[in-house]
Amino acid sequence: MSQRIRIALDAMGGDQAPRIVLKGAERALQRFPGVHFLLYGAEDKIEPLLAKLPKLKAAATLRHTDEMVTNETKPSVALRTGRRSSMRLALDAVAAGEADGMVSAGNTGALMAMAKFVLKTLPGIDRPAIASIFPTLRGESVMLDLGANVECDEENLVQFAVMGDAFARCVLGLPQPTIGLLNVGSEEMKGHETLRVAAARLRAPGSPVAFHGFIEGNDIAGGVVDVVVTDGFTGNVALKTAEGTSKLFVEYLRQAFRHSLLARLGYLLAAPALKKMRNRIDPRRYNGAMFLGLNGIAVKSHGGADALGFANAIGVAVDMHVNGFLHQIRDELARLAPAPATAAI
Amino acid sequence: MSQRIRIALDAMGGDQAPRIVLKGAERALQRFPGVHFLLYGAEDKIEPLLAKLPKLKAAATLRHTDEMVTNETKPSVALRTGRRSSMRLALDAVAAGEADGMVSAGNTGALMAMAKFVLKTLPGIDRPAIASIFPTLRGESVMLDLGANVECDEENLVQFAVMGDAFARCVLGLPQPTIGLLNVGSEEMKGHETLRVAAARLRAPGSPVAFHGFIEGNDIAGGVVDVVVTDGFTGNVALKTAEGTSKLFVEYLRQAFRHSLLARLGYLLAAPALKKMRNRIDPRRYNGAMFLGLNGIAVKSHGGADALGFANAIGVAVDMHVNGFLHQIRDELARLAPAPATAAI
Repeated sequence: MSQRIRIALDAMGGDQAPRIVLKGAERALQRFPGVHFLLYGAEDKIEPLLAKLPKLKAAATLRHTDEMVTNETKPSVALRTGRRSSMRLALDAVAAGEADGMVSAGNTGALMAMAKFVLKTLPGIDRPAIASIFPTLRGESVMLDLGANVECDEENLVQFAVMGDAFARCVLGLPQPTIGLLNVGSEEMKGHETLRVAAARLRAPGSPVAFHGFIEGNDIAGGVVDVVVTDGFTGNVALKTAEGTSKLFVEYLRQAFRHSLLARLGYLLAAPALKKMRNRIDPRRYNGAMFLGLNGIAVKSHGGADALGFANAIGVAVDMHVNGFLHQIRDELARLAPAPATAAI
Repeated sequence: MSQRIRIALDAMGGDQAPRIVLKGAERALQRFPGVHFLLYGAEDKIEPLLAKLPKLKAAATLRHTDEMVTNETKPSVALRTGRRSSMRLALDAVAAGEADGMVSAGNTGALMAMAKFVLKTLPGIDRPAIASIFPTLRGESVMLDLGANVECDEENLVQFAVMGDAFARCVLGLPQPTIGLLNVGSEEMKGHETLRVAAARLRAPGSPVAFHGFIEGNDIAGGVVDVVVTDGFTGNVALKTAEGTSKLFVEYLRQAFRHSLLARLGYLLAAPALKKMRNRIDPRRYNGAMFLGLNGIAVKSHGGADALGFANAIGVAVDMHVNGFLHQIRDELARLAPAPATAAI
């Protein structure tokens, strides 16, 4: 892979675009000096910022467009009327083979709708899913779907398992990732019928993945499995519940250290160690949700991410490309056994 | 309310029963000296323990039974064959008016099935729900359902809102609790059809509750609403995800303080303040899931709770009784507008 890596950026997506996008890209160059960026967005806003970021300017091509997708745009409207938007053009660059992946901090629903339309789903995948890496007691795991599909059938869940497996192999570097289905109990009888059927498929001989079985909500942060598979509604609630709980904890900790003079002094002494801990759970470190199941690499940054967060989202796109995620997932899909036919009675 | 409060205990339910149940009851007497306990379980196991707990012995009546429901017993089997079990007899005491409420740390599914059968649901309630209090950035909130109903329709969700409202008034002491429906986005268009219909009902004129609207997972710990309403699958995953995240955080914190000599010293100085913080999120403090919607008070303690945790579960039952939860919820149900009839076309 001697060729330069090319990443397309929706320079206009996100709460503080294009500033944060450009600063994030400049920052990503520290880790990936070999990347070339295609920047899509409004010249008059981007040029003055680029003038102050000479390293990025030397490693980027600016492609002007006046149009952009806002956070208020409905996905269907974005799809119909957003053909010249910065988001769409960045996706087009991936589809045309001009870019190896794209990153946007814009409207999630619009990005998913456009990405499906422009990149198409991989053969054997009915619906793409949103995935993200998160910290656990044992290291890092990946969870999907995080909101692309509010309702899922057993076939979707089996496909998500394969997509998550390929991702964990490529990006987390695990030779044999374990897969868990999120449920309300680990017993085989618990939960929806859909979950039981999906589990039976993943457990059957010839299953393409190493299926651990059902897991419960507390097993997510426990790191019981490498890949947590769930529908987009439950995954979205779980991810955001974990975020909310972390915030609560940080706030309680802050209040504890302000509680007395001794506690403040204790904080000063422990500060370097606490900072390391904070880095471990820093949401910016885990910024960058992957759209899996598409014929191309598309990564969604949090709309409110700062430059460090956006740089990490770029890092996810680069990692997926460099580690051959698309080849891996195509191989796995080819191995995926078809749904078992109902036995004739 | 000059009459003595009588609480029936399933002395044989829980990982370390009857020891923890009895120690928990003795502990609860410190906070509620006026309570009298009816203890259901095996005499030969309970008597020797009671001999060492003279205060409890003086405030308790032992009612012997050899039978008990184990964690492995299926709810349907418990219902059919468990008529002489300690769990069932404690519920019977509530139904017969001999006890004002009951607490069990045993098999959740069996307890729910038996409680429904013995206590019956309140008029206007189709299905009872499991509720629990949890800490938030703004204080405390209550969430339901936490697992009694894996699938719920809009009518169930509306009834849960009423049950949660009554609970928040009585036990949290809020004059006008705000109610939120857990969803994947706060916009009106997001999520399942069931959620949109339930929201429309709760928002309509004549709604029995102060409906805030949709909330997301991060709003749970954020304390955005006083009552979080959701189906039992999502609620169970959210609750356990929050528990898992808290554990992860505590472990990271522990590692941080062991990181260096200075950090250890810092810990010593801040220890009293940190202990206060730990108390705020101590899961034992929030032990005691309420079965709401029944014609009687039944509280489920965590099976692995210690004496402090079990005492808190007893406290929940006492609070619900003393604050007239059953009267409150009956009043609210009477006010509940019937489902709007579909307009003739």
